[in-house]
Amino acid sequence: MRILIIGGHGTIGKKVTSHFAEGNDLVIAGRTSGDYTVDISDSNSIQALFEKVGSVDAVICIAGEAKWADFEELTEADYYIGLKSKLMGQVNLVRIGKNYLSKGGSITLSTGILADDPVIKTTSAAMVNGGIHSFVQAVALEIEDGIRVNAVSLGVVEDAYDKYRDYFPGHNPIPMTKVVNAYTRSVKGKDNGKIIRVYN
Amino acid sequence: MRILIIGGHGTIGKKVTSHFAEGNDLVIAGRTSGDYTVDISDSNSIQALFEKVGSVDAVICIAGEAKWADFEELTEADYYIGLKSKLMGQVNLVRIGKNYLSKGGSITLSTGILADDPVIKTTSAAMVNGGIHSFVQAVALEIEDGIRVNAVSLGVVEDAYDKYRDYFPGHNPIPMTKVVNAYTRSVKGKDNGKIIRVYN
Repeated sequence: MRILIIGGHGTIGKKVTSHFAEGNDLVIAGRTSGDYTVDISDSNSIQALFEKVGSVDAVICIAGEAKWADFEELTEADYYIGLKSKLMGQVNLVRIGKNYLSKGGSITLSTGILADDPVIKTTSAAMVNGGIHSFVQAVALEIEDGIRVNAVSLGVVEDAYDKYRDYFPGHNPIPMTKVVNAYTRSVKGKDNGKIIRVYN
Repeated sequence: MRILIIGGHGTIGKKVTSHFAEGNDLVIAGRTSGDYTVDISDSNSIQALFEKVGSVDAVICIAGEAKWADFEELTEADYYIGLKSKLMGQVNLVRIGKNYLSKGGSITLSTGILADDPVIKTTSAAMVNGGIHSFVQAVALEIEDGIRVNAVSLGVVEDAYDKYRDYFPGHNPIPMTKVVNAYTRSVKGKDNGKIIRVYN
């Protein structure tokens, strides 16, 4: 299977990449590193990426940012960072990427527990994750050629737990094996329009 | 109670307005009609509205648009219609409106069943509704002065059933009494951060 992983060098991306490296042909893209660079907040950059990469059987996106800050401090422009990157970046990945997927291929997006169970400082980040959840369910009704679109929505993952634990009081770290399984389920299974939630 | 209703002349707005007219001091705003006009896709217009209206005890927003079209036809710019209007319009109503609310006041936003259970042509509309659901849960954790923020998420309402029934095969029309009750619950109850779903 030829798999394009966008964000293959991040905390989660590294584990997902190392899992799929066995038995698949991987293409890694990232903002600053990888086989190709891409800025997912720019749809021209996404289009250019696919023109270079060509046809794939699966796309996994573990990229996209949103600004974390107190509600009182977030400006209107701050919200648009997340809207352009994590939200429309992933929507555009589906809009453009579907044209480069083989029949029955899959696109796996990444969101997070904030969509369902936010913490402080996440009015923007929760919002974009929730938007993706509804988008994924909607696009699955219309996308053609057997292409499947899912989102993996994780709690705080084990490998980033020390960095984020203070923002998520009482949350349990998600073992990286469960993280890898969630992406595997989307790529290798038959789900379409599914939010694969791993919160415990 | 002094209540600002934005979108008071629409299908739902008319019923909500006529309900709250009894025993409350209503201020009606709309894009083209009402005591004041406002374009919620423009935060300057929202700011100007509140400067004219002054302090209120509750804000009800039944406004905001998103483009409905086949996924294949929706352009990137089309998505931004909904992002600027129904999504960021309602986020900005909370950001700006909270400064004009009395202690313990409420802001009630409007979304819809598409967030949880989309139909075709709604990749954009579902997405903005889902974004609002997560935003409402997140902002409730941070908003101060006892201000409450909720969303009313309705199925296809009885008064618009003939217009929309073909888009929602098998959906049951929501009686307008239930619609009015949902807004009443948000305004007069104690809920905060709640998605008040009325899908049957």
